[in-house]
Amino acid sequence: MKLWQENIKKITPYTPGEQPENKNIIKLNTNESPYSPSPNVINALKNYNINNLRLYPSFVCDELKTELTKIYPVNKDEIFLGNGSDEVLALCFMTFFNSKKSILFPDITYSFYKVWCNLYNIPFKTIPVDKNFKINKEDYFKQNGGIVITNPNAPTSIYMDTSEIEDILKNNKSSIVIVDEAYIDFGGKTMAHLINKYDNLVVVQTYSKSRALAGIRVGYALANSELVSALESVKNSFNSYTLNSLSQLVATEATKDTQYFNLCVDKIKSSRQWTINELNNLGFSTLDSRTNFIFTTNKNIDAKYLFEKLKEKNIYIRYFDKPRINQHLRITIGTQEQMEKLIKAIKEIIKKTSIS
Amino acid sequence: MKLWQENIKKITPYTPGEQPENKNIIKLNTNESPYSPSPNVINALKNYNINNLRLYPSFVCDELKTELTKIYPVNKDEIFLGNGSDEVLALCFMTFFNSKKSILFPDITYSFYKVWCNLYNIPFKTIPVDKNFKINKEDYFKQNGGIVITNPNAPTSIYMDTSEIEDILKNNKSSIVIVDEAYIDFGGKTMAHLINKYDNLVVVQTYSKSRALAGIRVGYALANSELVSALESVKNSFNSYTLNSLSQLVATEATKDTQYFNLCVDKIKSSRQWTINELNNLGFSTLDSRTNFIFTTNKNIDAKYLFEKLKEKNIYIRYFDKPRINQHLRITIGTQEQMEKLIKAIKEIIKKTSIS
Repeated sequence: MKLWQENIKKITPYTPGEQPENKNIIKLNTNESPYSPSPNVINALKNYNINNLRLYPSFVCDELKTELTKIYPVNKDEIFLGNGSDEVLALCFMTFFNSKKSILFPDITYSFYKVWCNLYNIPFKTIPVDKNFKINKEDYFKQNGGIVITNPNAPTSIYMDTSEIEDILKNNKSSIVIVDEAYIDFGGKTMAHLINKYDNLVVVQTYSKSRALAGIRVGYALANSELVSALESVKNSFNSYTLNSLSQLVATEATKDTQYFNLCVDKIKSSRQWTINELNNLGFSTLDSRTNFIFTTNKNIDAKYLFEKLKEKNIYIRYFDKPRINQHLRITIGTQEQMEKLIKAIKEIIKKTSIS
Repeated sequence: MKLWQENIKKITPYTPGEQPENKNIIKLNTNESPYSPSPNVINALKNYNINNLRLYPSFVCDELKTELTKIYPVNKDEIFLGNGSDEVLALCFMTFFNSKKSILFPDITYSFYKVWCNLYNIPFKTIPVDKNFKINKEDYFKQNGGIVITNPNAPTSIYMDTSEIEDILKNNKSSIVIVDEAYIDFGGKTMAHLINKYDNLVVVQTYSKSRALAGIRVGYALANSELVSALESVKNSFNSYTLNSLSQLVATEATKDTQYFNLCVDKIKSSRQWTINELNNLGFSTLDSRTNFIFTTNKNIDAKYLFEKLKEKNIYIRYFDKPRINQHLRITIGTQEQMEKLIKAIKEIIKKTSIS
């Protein structure tokens, strides 16, 4: 062993959903939007003066923050922008979770939380969700170094009423509570308006899901200006310019187009309901989704088997080989046409399996 | 004091050069290129199908890596891409510098190194450059937890012969040596071809300077595949998708246009020589620059005074209020026209100062 190898960080990274190069698949595995971003973006890119690309991006991201203040009742100094909500969360963990006490999050939730704890040596305890995958607020009324709640939760798709999270906030005035609202636009109620009522609340959102812009990597945290200022200091100690000029431009233009945004979200919600009905008619049991994906199980079909059979038919969904959820499947809501093809494919697989 | 405040990371961030909103200034303060990126980029953006932005970016960045393998004698698995070379360096520090021994870097160099050490609690010692601002290789022949050398160095602009850095590598087989080549294209010789000769060598470069793309935030490290693999694991434990789709596209297109790249670099070198001559004729003493900036001093004019007077004339250069260099100024090489305006302005300031 070479001596320098001893000092290299060894770590098991997060594993995102597959990103196959094959463009002919139906891709329902990473919770992207099936709809194009706002057509405003086309013109913005066409008319962009590339001479600006020689310059560093805007440090303050004023235009994008201005658009966000039109959507949420917050001031610009209550917005922290980052290179995707993953970076925002990574920097939140680094900034806020420096206690010797364990931070708490559900056992079934976004699996990146555990990875960040390992990266920064943050002690953590996972709190089991109940047998219906629900988060029980009382489980979080105990000593901790911070709390992270995804609402709606992933991969379960379940929404927790904000009054319950308010109870968690009230019972944890000594620690920061991060509410990861990556999927909030598909049927939940944001807590953005509460960042000044609760000075320990950090709300995190993303452009990758409802805003159909996973490709530009933009996410943000909303919190009181003291917390945002602490985040800015840590960010500026890591990488001064995390948001490139084109992503700022595209996100700004897309944010202006509220009408198109609502249209796409409504289509996804409608296809979601249709898909849940179809699946349940086929014997599936599907959780009440408030996200752009569903979490479903069928006691007559092995989840991994169905996952693999669908892949053979070029339909990619997500399977987690993990305790408690290894008989469930997470399926992103695509276009109505894609969901019809999915249901057709599942029917074929069920039929063949029954015969053989 | 609220209890959660105790657990917030307190840190002094890096301070980048000013990014004034006023577009009518001559901006020679952050080492950006005065030339537009390759015209290839215009068409690439015009023809881009924005529907792709709804999807996560390519995880492997294959196209951009392929272009880089045409420029440097490296394989794709020897390239690590990041959101600007600042992110690449930030992740290198996190990945490679986990020894209890101090890492070493010059006292006068890129001031972000110290900030990353503070962020990650990496012990460090700065090694004074000599009175001519030169790095003495023998100073690095001693126990350490890693070494960082900027070549050419910033803000001094001085180039160190690669044979001297090879001696540092040979005398430090137990630690990782990062060579930050942000400015290498303006007159230095890259060490990229040596990453397999020295398994402890990491070469870092950026698209922000010679490639005229500070706005898209792309940087990279070249190192043997084992080191790159360690970097990838840490990156994937921080943020899976650091390089957005548009930055990948723009960088790929720009990289293809070698002819335009060479043309711009040559123009900058030529204006650099002209500016150095003019300044020295005015009594300045300017270091032998191999970068797109110069580091200059004039014993008859206070550096900070000249910096402020130029700002009044809407010409922004960089002044560092730090020991040893507080009588020097760092001036980015702009277009020939901008440099002529700079010299004219300096002449006016000198004239007024002599009269009063």
